[in-house]
Amino acid sequence: MSIITLTTDFGTRDWFVGSLKGVILGVNPEVTIVDIAHEIPAGDVRAGAFALLASYRCFPRSTVHVAIVDPGVGSHRAAIGVRTADYVFVGPDNGVLSFALGREKVVEIRRLDNDEYFRKPVCNTFHGRDVFAPVAVRLTQNIPFGSLGERLTDYVRLDWPQPRQDGGRIRGEIVYIDHFGNAITNIELADKGVSRLCVPDKLACEAREFYQATPGGQALTLVGSSGFLEIAVNGGNAARMFALTLGDVVEVW
Amino acid sequence: MSIITLTTDFGTRDWFVGSLKGVILGVNPEVTIVDIAHEIPAGDVRAGAFALLASYRCFPRSTVHVAIVDPGVGSHRAAIGVRTADYVFVGPDNGVLSFALGREKVVEIRRLDNDEYFRKPVCNTFHGRDVFAPVAVRLTQNIPFGSLGERLTDYVRLDWPQPRQDGGRIRGEIVYIDHFGNAITNIELADKGVSRLCVPDKLACEAREFYQATPGGQALTLVGSSGFLEIAVNGGNAARMFALTLGDVVEVW
Amino acid sequence: MSIITLTTDFGTRDWFVGSLKGVILGVNPEVTIVDIAHEIPAGDVRAGAFALLASYRCFPRSTVHVAIVDPGVGSHRAAIGVRTADYVFVGPDNGVLSFALGREKVVEIRRLDNDEYFRKPVCNTFHGRDVFAPVAVRLTQNIPFGSLGERLTDYVRLDWPQPRQDGGRIRGEIVYIDHFGNAITNIELADKGVSRLCVPDKLACEAREFYQATPGGQALTLVGSSGFLEIAVNGGNAARMFALTLGDVVEVW
Repeated sequence: MSIITLTTDFGTRDWFVGSLKGVILGVNPEVTIVDIAHEIPAGDVRAGAFALLASYRCFPRSTVHVAIVDPGVGSHRAAIGVRTADYVFVGPDNGVLSFALGREKVVEIRRLDNDEYFRKPVCNTFHGRDVFAPVAVRLTQNIPFGSLGERLTDYVRLDWPQPRQDGGRIRGEIVYIDHFGNAITNIELADKGVSRLCVPDKLACEAREFYQATPGGQALTLVGSSGFLEIAVNGGNAARMFALTLGDVVEVW
Repeated sequence: MSIITLTTDFGTRDWFVGSLKGVILGVNPEVTIVDIAHEIPAGDVRAGAFALLASYRCFPRSTVHVAIVDPGVGSHRAAIGVRTADYVFVGPDNGVLSFALGREKVVEIRRLDNDEYFRKPVCNTFHGRDVFAPVAVRLTQNIPFGSLGERLTDYVRLDWPQPRQDGGRIRGEIVYIDHFGNAITNIELADKGVSRLCVPDKLACEAREFYQATPGGQALTLVGSSGFLEIAVNGGNAARMFALTLGDVVEVW
Repeated sequence: MSIITLTTDFGTRDWFVGSLKGVILGVNPEVTIVDIAHEIPAGDVRAGAFALLASYRCFPRSTVHVAIVDPGVGSHRAAIGVRTADYVFVGPDNGVLSFALGREKVVEIRRLDNDEYFRKPVCNTFHGRDVFAPVAVRLTQNIPFGSLGERLTDYVRLDWPQPRQDGGRIRGEIVYIDHFGNAITNIELADKGVSRLCVPDKLACEAREFYQATPGGQALTLVGSSGFLEIAVNGGNAARMFALTLGDVVEVW
């Protein structure tokens, strides 16, 4: 039983995701396909990279993770397949895979230039259907990884803002805002770490163990499910209440 | 072949639902996972309970139904597993399971306190991934139900508004508004039952057999697919046209 | 391994799609169900027909395609099953299948009037759950196609606007606007075909091979993934930038 995950900005309003799945099942009907997210904002490579980072480790070994946020589709940006100690990753080489790959032991990187594996004719606006999906499903069928194409020595990395120590404080920033309005920061801490957080001019709050450990409608900070410190409001939407946005500076101590 | 259904307020914009599925497939790759709904309004336990009530009976016997609308995640609210004559239910003990359980023959209720079945470390903001999903998938593998944890004698029930007889009329209320703008009431009737409906100060309409049995743009009432009387507009959105909202009083006769 | 696809206007906010899947898996738990789209605008038969047209060929032979955009549910409109050389189609006979069927070699059309295959009692507002899903899944179990019901000689066709030659230009129209804001026209061209496009009073642009072949923020036209000429903006939303709407006249030369 093989698993392919899909993380894209295709949306679910049209037929794009369904088309990928049809192509995959046409090659290997035994594959289990799991949607991670398809509402990544159009062209937002960083948001796609973060969604993949936050979830890929929940999947069993040998899962093939496909991430497609690809404003350069059809141009000369490379398409790549990456084998790590535990997983396989497939996507455009524009950084969308890079947050996850940064946590993995990379074994081999190949440019997807063997068009034997492609769906023909390849449409210049939909490599998801014609390149990434058909290559990903072949990778569940034990083709030699080296047959994908030319070996590469590295992949494109997105900048990841590193939190900095500043006197007694750690200074980071907001890197993702989720559906509940929780604002996820780039700060990873051991559990002991932190007692207070502030976003200058916007809010100050204390660390708590869970949402309802603070009164309803009040802000708190806690270590969220992806391992990063996040800002939440018990029973409310923190981003909306405090006008939090991506890139806002966050200080903890 | 085992089936697990998911009803949550996690949304589909982020990676939360995908994470649950990864955890489930990592334990039992043969499970079929079905999404019932993930756009339950954040924290709206009653809407989640209604969605589960309206759909769970469509699934074959032995399906494991997981419902997670859980504003108290990480607090001292219990997590429960409930075995009924036909199904298994898993979720927080905050009433989200209670409308469905109220229709079922309950056989056994267990508190989920055996952490052998959990994904470790358990994150206080995401029991969906770390408690409910891993327990649910173990229940597809024939573990003894009693091994889940302490036996409980009851579960938390949400109030369900009972329609009342009032002279020649039945008086109920609107309990759910669906995607089409159809307003579902709490009134269940045998087919013969009713010829007219009114929402005081908002609308009056007649009972019909199907939407197009009334002229385009006009309101009607009929027994909807979940067995409750609902208010619809042929070719239109009843809730928007008549400003219908949850809790509006409905009279039928 | 059998595949059933679903294209509907049920939305994903409620439990409707989940209910269909429960019914399907209750009859044949080995079926793979693929969502094509569920956010077709309510009652928009033409948009549903286009989504099916644009995607159905990505699926392997023998796939059962179910399309339900059905404002006439419960009325005397027919429900049909259609066998073609490569696929089976199931849905209301209101034209939602007609764009796809227009490309297929139709072998046999049957009215779905054999209620042995239905889920009982059939609800007049939800033939998706009670008629189309249970019939579709029986069709993965090799029932005789003729047992579905009365043989029909034709199906309802939606008008498809044909592009017209006008002097040196081809004149067509916008028939679909996708999630990215790309405006899809009814014009199919061989690759050589076209160098310029205009939407009178709104925009003029040149043909390009891929999105980034034009500077960021500028419009272009190219042959999109469904084979039709489309209007896009590199890194932007063409429909919003140029106020493009369905039915807008498009000229190419």
